[in-house]
Amino acid sequence: MVNIAILGHGVVGSGVAEVLQNNCKGIAAKAGDSIVVRRILDLRAFPDLPYADLFTTDFQDILQDEEIRIVVETMGGLHPAYDFVKACLLAGKSVVTSNKELVAAKGDELLTIARERNLNFLFEASVGGGIPILRPLDQCLAANEVFEVAGILNGTTNFMLTKMIREKMSFDGALALAQKLGYAERNPAADVEGMDACRKTCILASLAFGKHVYPEEVYTEGITAITEADVQYAAACGGVIKLLGRAIRTEDGHVFCMVAPMILPSDNLLAGVDDVFNGIMVRGDSVGDVVFVGRGAGKLPTASAVVADVIDEVKHLNARKYLYWGPNEPGHVRDHRLAPVSMLMRFSCEEDAGALVQIGRTFGDVRMISIPDAPANEVAFITPCMPEYLLMDKIGGFSGMTLTRAIRMYAVR
Amino acid sequence: MVNIAILGHGVVGSGVAEVLQNNCKGIAAKAGDSIVVRRILDLRAFPDLPYADLFTTDFQDILQDEEIRIVVETMGGLHPAYDFVKACLLAGKSVVTSNKELVAAKGDELLTIARERNLNFLFEASVGGGIPILRPLDQCLAANEVFEVAGILNGTTNFMLTKMIREKMSFDGALALAQKLGYAERNPAADVEGMDACRKTCILASLAFGKHVYPEEVYTEGITAITEADVQYAAACGGVIKLLGRAIRTEDGHVFCMVAPMILPSDNLLAGVDDVFNGIMVRGDSVGDVVFVGRGAGKLPTASAVVADVIDEVKHLNARKYLYWGPNEPGHVRDHRLAPVSMLMRFSCEEDAGALVQIGRTFGDVRMISIPDAPANEVAFITPCMPEYLLMDKIGGFSGMTLTRAIRMYAVR
Repeated sequence: MVNIAILGHGVVGSGVAEVLQNNCKGIAAKAGDSIVVRRILDLRAFPDLPYADLFTTDFQDILQDEEIRIVVETMGGLHPAYDFVKACLLAGKSVVTSNKELVAAKGDELLTIARERNLNFLFEASVGGGIPILRPLDQCLAANEVFEVAGILNGTTNFMLTKMIREKMSFDGALALAQKLGYAERNPAADVEGMDACRKTCILASLAFGKHVYPEEVYTEGITAITEADVQYAAACGGVIKLLGRAIRTEDGHVFCMVAPMILPSDNLLAGVDDVFNGIMVRGDSVGDVVFVGRGAGKLPTASAVVADVIDEVKHLNARKYLYWGPNEPGHVRDHRLAPVSMLMRFSCEEDAGALVQIGRTFGDVRMISIPDAPANEVAFITPCMPEYLLMDKIGGFSGMTLTRAIRMYAVR
Repeated sequence: MVNIAILGHGVVGSGVAEVLQNNCKGIAAKAGDSIVVRRILDLRAFPDLPYADLFTTDFQDILQDEEIRIVVETMGGLHPAYDFVKACLLAGKSVVTSNKELVAAKGDELLTIARERNLNFLFEASVGGGIPILRPLDQCLAANEVFEVAGILNGTTNFMLTKMIREKMSFDGALALAQKLGYAERNPAADVEGMDACRKTCILASLAFGKHVYPEEVYTEGITAITEADVQYAAACGGVIKLLGRAIRTEDGHVFCMVAPMILPSDNLLAGVDDVFNGIMVRGDSVGDVVFVGRGAGKLPTASAVVADVIDEVKHLNARKYLYWGPNEPGHVRDHRLAPVSMLMRFSCEEDAGALVQIGRTFGDVRMISIPDAPANEVAFITPCMPEYLLMDKIGGFSGMTLTRAIRMYAVR
């Protein structure tokens, strides 16, 4: 029998308790031992639950209980989650967390503490919800040089973009629907401004390329500026707009890392990942492209990933598991403006002919894109591929034309 | 340093040697030890290779070499691969194989021998080539009751169907192209008749549901009878034809298992898995649907999965890993005709009106399907969902109508 504790009885934490109970027989068989929830930390009381007596409001009840070998952290947020998790590891307890904010900000420190004490710190649920991605990525990494990890990492914004694409909804309409269905929070900033995707991108980039990447190092652009016209332009380009998190290794061993709406060609495997689904692509030298798709959030999908980690830790109570990355290294993440990119650019211009002459003179032949409902005096085209700062430099010389929108085209590098 | 041997220096075996060499530094870091190929068994000599001196034609050179701790079997076929693998396990060596025929026929026996001797027998590459699927499935299984595993498991036939769908090629034209490109062998029977997909379905079903499923127990239908008209009918139904391997758990704990061309709705995640790609869907009670996509064959993708297994075995030289299933149990796989199914049925009939009356009388309202190029005197419709034997019973009563084709509709159960 292995005793565990759960910190935070919210959506995910209560789901963990539920999955452990519903599938207890199968889980015990898998883990080789029964798993018993001994304590649950929450400031609220849940008197009507059958396990109401497990609740405590005092973290010390868990920290000082030597019978508790594994602690599940599902509180979310940086504090006090960080302080509690660190204290648990220092006290010799292995930890499982679903908290992407914590892992993105403190992963290297917590992994190092776990490693030094021969404990496990696992966080499969922090990226892609229930989709097994960190272990498969680790497996891909085992026999491959990984060049790129890219993914649709936020279900809320993917749901909204799907509605904007398929049902021609406006951003505001799609957001209101997402909120009504419970996919978006009342304050949707973390989703629509890309912060949630940014944290997950950091975790993927850190694991894929071995050095901790902090959220502050990742250029992050959300979907708040995306309009119906952008969606139409994307279709005219033969693609769809998706909010992508992307980390690419450069030839000299650095990393380009970014979260932004990008136009994916329709035949890209991620282009068909719609609604609240997440999809993550790993590109390796031997395996080529591998894609993982599933529900990236939700109570039970996320809980099932947490429970899989718990089972893994029960099986490895006295042995370390694999996931690990090294400390952050300044300069490891390169300025995204150095990355070569092709963009769909829209300009509002005083007169079309002059604009076309300037575009041709600057870029040579480019692919012009038009849509039926284009605003008056708008020209749009797909730029050649070059470092982003160079692209911006070149259009800086345009006169009588104002850049109204630039969306990156996703392309294999 | 861990010494390994490779049995069979064909496409996959030479790929394993290549991946181990190309990524040796990263692999040693991952495995925590360097991995050295000490012997390669092949009847042919490869005098021009830098590692020509490693070759032997005598299996005893490997079996009796106590320095060799791990043996990679990439010969394919049942004999002598089975005899060699069994001898290696009995001699205390862990084994990695990419041989689906071997695992589908002898998995339970070899897993049992490995378990009794505290050795590992891993075979990630036997399903889905380079796609990590068996470990993620194991992870899904850890915290989920899995209801279904379904997949596009054969890249050759998926390539052919893609050509038939997108470019309106005939079966023969698509096969000739696949052979020209090296995707299909000169004798394409194992691919086009579904045997390859059947073996992989057995491995997935055995792992997902815990009891060995033999190929003989799985109803298997290839794509040799699929015509351009079938492809058009599928489109008219709002879907695409894919060769699917499918294993479903019944409520009473049995399994329905089948390989057959099925019409997948276009919005199904597997419907977009085209060309030589494989895609596998796992459906669990907590996680919902999770899909894994990538190249299901090819030298380096498959080799990278083999090498990942080797690394795992190096890390667990003295500890067993997880993959396991129990022995076959007669009656565990139920007769596929008992499974509820809806079918697209095409009939050649003496006169249309009479046919429609009989169809209406038998099934009530059904969805009639027509295509522009339908043969004369043909009616086609989608049947209601009911056990297949019942469906066949009912149409057995039709008169003046001959069933020319029945294709199963894929539907979530």
